[in-house]
Formats: sequence, structure tokens, C-alpha cells
Amino acid sequence: MMKNVLVLMPVEARHKAKLEAAGAGCRITYCSPAEVTADEIQSANAILGQPDAAMIGASENLEWLQLESAGADAYIRPGVLSAKTVLTNATAAYSKAVAEHAFALTLMLQKKLYLYRDEQKRAVWSDHGVVSSLSDCTVAVVGLGDIGRHYARLVKAMGARVIGVKRRAADPPPCVDELVMTRDLDTVFPEADVVMSVLPGSAATRHIYTDESFDRMKDTALFINCGRGSAVASDVLYRALSGHKIAAAAMDVAEIEPLPADSPLWALENLVITPHISGGFHLPETFERIVDIAANNLAAYAEGRELHNVVDFATGYKK
Amino acid sequence: MMKNVLVLMPVEARHKAKLEAAGAGCRITYCSPAEVTADEIQSANAILGQPDAAMIGASENLEWLQLESAGADAYIRPGVLSAKTVLTNATAAYSKAVAEHAFALTLMLQKKLYLYRDEQKRAVWSDHGVVSSLSDCTVAVVGLGDIGRHYARLVKAMGARVIGVKRRAADPPPCVDELVMTRDLDTVFPEADVVMSVLPGSAATRHIYTDESFDRMKDTALFINCGRGSAVASDVLYRALSGHKIAAAAMDVAEIEPLPADSPLWALENLVITPHISGGFHLPETFERIVDIAANNLAAYAEGRELHNVVDFATGYKK
Repeated sequence: MMKNVLVLMPVEARHKAKLEAAGAGCRITYCSPAEVTADEIQSANAILGQPDAAMIGASENLEWLQLESAGADAYIRPGVLSAKTVLTNATAAYSKAVAEHAFALTLMLQKKLYLYRDEQKRAVWSDHGVVSSLSDCTVAVVGLGDIGRHYARLVKAMGARVIGVKRRAADPPPCVDELVMTRDLDTVFPEADVVMSVLPGSAATRHIYTDESFDRMKDTALFINCGRGSAVASDVLYRALSGHKIAAAAMDVAEIEPLPADSPLWALENLVITPHISGGFHLPETFERIVDIAANNLAAYAEGRELHNVVDFATGYKK
Repeated sequence: MMKNVLVLMPVEARHKAKLEAAGAGCRITYCSPAEVTADEIQSANAILGQPDAAMIGASENLEWLQLESAGADAYIRPGVLSAKTVLTNATAAYSKAVAEHAFALTLMLQKKLYLYRDEQKRAVWSDHGVVSSLSDCTVAVVGLGDIGRHYARLVKAMGARVIGVKRRAADPPPCVDELVMTRDLDTVFPEADVVMSVLPGSAATRHIYTDESFDRMKDTALFINCGRGSAVASDVLYRALSGHKIAAAAMDVAEIEPLPADSPLWALENLVITPHISGGFHLPETFERIVDIAANNLAAYAEGRELHNVVDFATGYKK
């Protein structure tokens, strides 16, 4: 039977040509997520894009959902997808964009550029003292997926010692000097000069950073969160920074997004906030890479081969 | 005759031990630049540090002046040093600190982190659109001394194409894809996504960037000045940025320092200002490297060998 493939991504003609070549033998239809109907979603055997999770309702027809995002939190919740649906993400498409953003934030904190920007607004030319170099730093990369490994390569190129933190034992990739299991995360805090977190959102990663985590970190440490805001409660982060348990932090994600206008986090001098823009389509090549991932998987789906980037529901990561 | 070596650097016991081992046979005295007398300077055969240029008065006793800075502008002016004085600088000591600062500024501009910092101050969570990656950029490094080459290595590690601009023809170093002579600087502007300038201060580099330079640049270009403020007149830079001839700029140096409180540059949204702090002793290892350079040269001086890091009075660079 001919498979119904529903494409909800903002594709242009050249992307359609790529998908249609990959999905020969499938019935491919295109729609925007805003205009798609419940019927269209319910009759789809495969969806490429991000439908409203509530509209899927564990459809038994849905064999495969290819997300355009890295995070899959909205789709791994109970009741969204049927047990027969294979979920794939597009993490690799974002690895460069998110890793480079996290790297830029790291250097901005390390070189105190946020303080100098604030001083500039007051027309003040004044020295804020010593800075450090990544070449003298131990950097903990918490979450060693595509993004974490790309970031590890960047800090490694500047001479950092890298501790990779991941859930399962494995040989460390070349950009990682030492591998620590997530269950031993606490042991990393006392020796890290930079803690960069790109954990996916899941029950296991929710509030993984606690008051005690920040107590254990160096008072000179920098903390960067470019994964999910749920990894650290806003009040925990606020206490760590206002109490100077660590030197400074940057976050591209918040526990509640958009960060509420009355959040005390906004006013912290030693916190840099960006509005969840490290990924998305902010780096133009990202969308091209997403379409490539989707097209490769569509070819595999059409031919009955195994899909890539399958999400593990327990971790929110690709398997 | 025993040589008088006057040390004006803020040395500690371990540095003194290093200098005394290197300068065996010399009479070494220590003083702070604030307390040193004209007599002490006039009787010195060698000075390590930065005396007030006016106090040197072209002393005929002075055979060698080892600066602790990279820039030598104050000492290459006519009448400061006698023709017999060899001037050496400490550029290499700063290359990591200044190059990393320039690199951090580059990423801050490229990822629009200055805009997000400004928005944060207003508690605004809003998207400022696309960013770029160094992997898609051509970066012109204007001034290929130690600092320029170190910066070139950093942007190259992120995938940039690097055009090095230098005064004299030579084989390009490995971190540089293409070499252009300074006299052809204009040809570089139309193709550069980033122009990073670390030119020393001299008559030849004064106001080297003109209105026409910025006219020739891409309107998406980023300009970073971590060399000397004299390379670009404040009003030229103001016109380039307020007129959006280029996208954004960052400067660690100003034509007049401190930048006057009434300068219109302070208020430009698309200009990031840091107060000449990329070098100095902001990276703690810098001073250690300066003492090493001074000690190596002191050993050469004591033994009558040739000195390293000799400054060319025509360029302000080391030869």
C-alpha cells in the first residue's frame, strides 16, 4: 500500500525535489503546521516536521515522525505517540549552530565582555581585572551528543582539558580527555572551570543541577546552559549567581520560555541571557542539513531500511 | 666595564632570580617607574621596563631598552632614544591574550551577543534573526605579527578562510590562505566578512582606515581593532557604523584613551567597546612570558650576542 508522507517543514522547490527523489513510491503532501488538519495528521503514515503534539493523539497510522528539532521533549511524553511510531530527530543539523553559540558565550564570560558592554552603556572606560584562557581551563561538557562533541572540539582547539559527561560508558571521542558517567556528575564540579550543559529535556535531566551542584563548583567557575531550561530551576540558578557561588553563567534556555518579564534572573549582572536562539534556523545552513537528514531517512523508510537518529524515549537523545 | 641594568618591571623574588642568573656580570638595580630618578635612568646602560619617554632624553649611555609592552609608539618618536639604543619589545608575550580577546569579540559580534545583552537589560526575550559561522567567512587579519598569527590560527580552527595582510612579501604562514601586501589593503575589503586589525602605531598606520575603506567593505562586514586606535579616526568609524556601511565593529583601542565620556561612539548599538584591556597583565601568564623574554635578552646582552624582538623604527614592529 502506498505510504502517506506529510511534510510540515517550510520547504522550497529544491527541497521538494530532494524529498521526492528520496521518497519515490510514497504519496507526499505538503502543508504548514498552522494549516494542517487533524484528518491529514491522522491519515499520515509518516510526518516530516513538528505537528502539534496534541493533534497526533497516538495515531496508529503513524509509523514514523521525523522532527526538525534537536529536542524531542514534546513528543516523548506518554500518550503523544503510539508504541509503533519511530521518532527521529535532527540533532546533527544543529550541532554547529548550538556549539558555536555556546562557545561564543563561553568566551564572552571568560573575557568579561558582558561587563564591558554594561560599562559602555554608562560611557565608562574602566578595567575589570584579570581574565583566563581556555588553555588553562578544565571544561566539563555535560551531554556528549552531536552538539557536545562539536563544542568539545572547539574548546579543545583553544587548549582546554575536556571532561565529557555522558549517560553510558563508551570510549571517549578524540576531543575528550576524560569520560565521566552522568551518575558521577557531582565529582566533576570541583575541578571544572567551565561547565557547559547540553542535556536534552527528560524526566532524568529535570533539575539535575541543584543548590549542592553549585556549592561544589569553584567560585571562579562559569556555567553555560544551551540544552533545556528544565535542567536547572530558576531559583537555584538565581541563588548560585546572586550568592557568587560561581563567577558567572550564560543561558540560552529557561525553565519557562519566554523567561517571564518579572524574573529576577534578567537583572543579574553575572548572567548572560539569550532567548533560545542558538539553534532554530538562525544559521542558514541548518535548514539545509535538516532536509538532508529527512531525505536520507525518507529513502530508508521507503525502502524499509533502518532509520537514523532514532530517539530513545528514556533519554530524549538519539540512540 | 660593568654594565648598569635598571629593572622597572614589577618583579617578584622568582623573577629577580631569573634575571640575575641571566645577567651575571651586570650591576642590576630595581625600581618602580613612579619612583625612578632622572639620574638612575641617565646612568643606565640597559633598562628593562617602561620609563617615562621624556626622562630618557636620548641618553647616550643607554645601549638597550627592553619594553614590557607590545606597542613601542612612545619610544620610536624622534628625540626619545639615541641612535645607538637598541629597542626590543615583548609582543610575543601578549599574543595569546590579545588574540583571544579579539577572537572573543569576533564571536560576540557574529552571534549578536551584544544585542542580546542590551535586550536583557530591558527584560526583553526577542529574536534578532540570522547569524553567521566563521566556517563560511573570509577573515582579513591586518598585521601579521605574533598576535595576528595567533588570531589567524583561532579563526582557521573554526573553518574560516584567512587573508593575511602584511607590509613585506613572505611565504604565508600555515594559518593563512592568502597573503596580501599592506599597500593593496583596499583590494581585501570587498571580500572580507571580518576585518581584524592589529597594526602597531606608527606614521605609516595612522588613519589607514578611511571613509573609502568602509565604503568598500561588505555591508555585512565586522571590523575589529585590537591594535592601535590611531589606525582609524573616531569620526570615520562613527560614520561607518551609524551609516550602516558595515554591520558592526568592536574596538579595544581608541584614538584618544580613555575614550572621552562625550564621544558619540559610546552610544552606538553596533559598536562594542573594551577599554584597552586585551593585553596588559590581564592574562596572568603574560607577565611570566615578559620576564622570560627580558631574561633571554639580558643573557644575550651580557654575552654580547644579538638581541631578539628588536623593533624596527619605521614600522613599530619587531624586525
